[in-house]
Amino acid sequence: MSALARPGLYGVGVGPGDPRWLTLRAAEVLREADVIALPRGERAAASRTLAIVGELLDRGRQRFLELPFATTGGLEAAEASREAIYEGVAAALAAGRAVACPLLGDPLLYGSFGHLLARVRERLPTVPVEIVPGVTAFTAAAARAGRPLVQGDERLAVLPAVYEEDLAALRDTLRRFDTTVLLKINRCVDEVLDVLDELDLTGAAWYAEHVGMAEERFAPDVRALRGRDLPYFSLLVVRGRGAR
Amino acid sequence: MSALARPGLYGVGVGPGDPRWLTLRAAEVLREADVIALPRGERAAASRTLAIVGELLDRGRQRFLELPFATTGGLEAAEASREAIYEGVAAALAAGRAVACPLLGDPLLYGSFGHLLARVRERLPTVPVEIVPGVTAFTAAAARAGRPLVQGDERLAVLPAVYEEDLAALRDTLRRFDTTVLLKINRCVDEVLDVLDELDLTGAAWYAEHVGMAEERFAPDVRALRGRDLPYFSLLVVRGRGAR
Repeated sequence: MSALARPGLYGVGVGPGDPRWLTLRAAEVLREADVIALPRGERAAASRTLAIVGELLDRGRQRFLELPFATTGGLEAAEASREAIYEGVAAALAAGRAVACPLLGDPLLYGSFGHLLARVRERLPTVPVEIVPGVTAFTAAAARAGRPLVQGDERLAVLPAVYEEDLAALRDTLRRFDTTVLLKINRCVDEVLDVLDELDLTGAAWYAEHVGMAEERFAPDVRALRGRDLPYFSLLVVRGRGAR
Repeated sequence: MSALARPGLYGVGVGPGDPRWLTLRAAEVLREADVIALPRGERAAASRTLAIVGELLDRGRQRFLELPFATTGGLEAAEASREAIYEGVAAALAAGRAVACPLLGDPLLYGSFGHLLARVRERLPTVPVEIVPGVTAFTAAAARAGRPLVQGDERLAVLPAVYEEDLAALRDTLRRFDTTVLLKINRCVDEVLDVLDELDLTGAAWYAEHVGMAEERFAPDVRALRGRDLPYFSLLVVRGRGAR
């Protein structure tokens, strides 16, 4: 018998990279769950998740449920994948298992867990659900860089992947917020650097990639990023408007 | 000898309340540090921090450095307090100790650690510093409430304590962002509820206080908050603009 002993769904934030950033509760749930459900889509995300939690798992006792997620085929394929993931998890829940889904960062701050959660709540309303919060990539990046994000009465904005059509909104956010975090900056970095130059914020920005992993890298001078091919796990922090 | 064995300053995020939300690294550092430095100002924050980390500490072996922080007397008194806190910590660092400062939530997302860090970096540049990121109150609140904060391409804004003079900026943020988190909502809750009504966002908001503690409470219908005296550890999440 598992010491966890309670069937149900566990959405477990595992942080962005360093296994020591798992919470005590996350480690406990991952060790004791009957089933580890790992949606696989973004290959980078799945292998990174496994690198973080691998040492805790017991491949002999625990069942591994690898659930494919379509990254091509548009919205319809994505919805079909989400439905298939739900069905895989629901079958394990129906069998009375404790099913843990390890999720990079925090389960409810971006990421895919919301879709699974909504389906389980709607269709299996009696299944107990526990969500374990996780360390987010941007707080971990700040910790590793030793740079405050926001202090006192400062305001923080977090923007997911920025595309060219978002640049007007980006300008506006950079003007209004003390600190702006840009996630997945790989999509459009040169255009973002142009906006920083235009607003005289280039010196107020810093960059991090693969935070907490062996490949972790920082760029305190973001001009070095111009023209570079950046990874998926990349972020930029702009601490402007006179904030220290 | 401590197994940590490395003198230096450790800024340790301890999360917002539940001791199980400490990271593995935070627990390790707090157990093994020579000195636990606890700035005391906001009484609520100091006692909450101790409630989270108390079980890990060894009052026989570890030295407790309680550092008073002036909460009255304005900016000048605050600066004097920060200087006194630095001096207390610097003396322990000069004696070659591993000094851990446990901090609610994350050390660099609001909170006071940035001031100490800046002083140590400037005046003791050879002292090693490690910052351990922590779970933030708003991701923990979302986890406990089971409600996603942001998904896909949504944008997130985090605002610290809102006062009456901030209401115009609040309106603007609520219109432009998918999700807005308002921290320390106790200062001005009725005025914020008026703004939500005006923008037809009352039904899109939820409230949490004392997340992860015995006194934890949620209000899925924020109209119940009107006229109530709310605690310091209170937050409101508004998930509007058609976000689920």
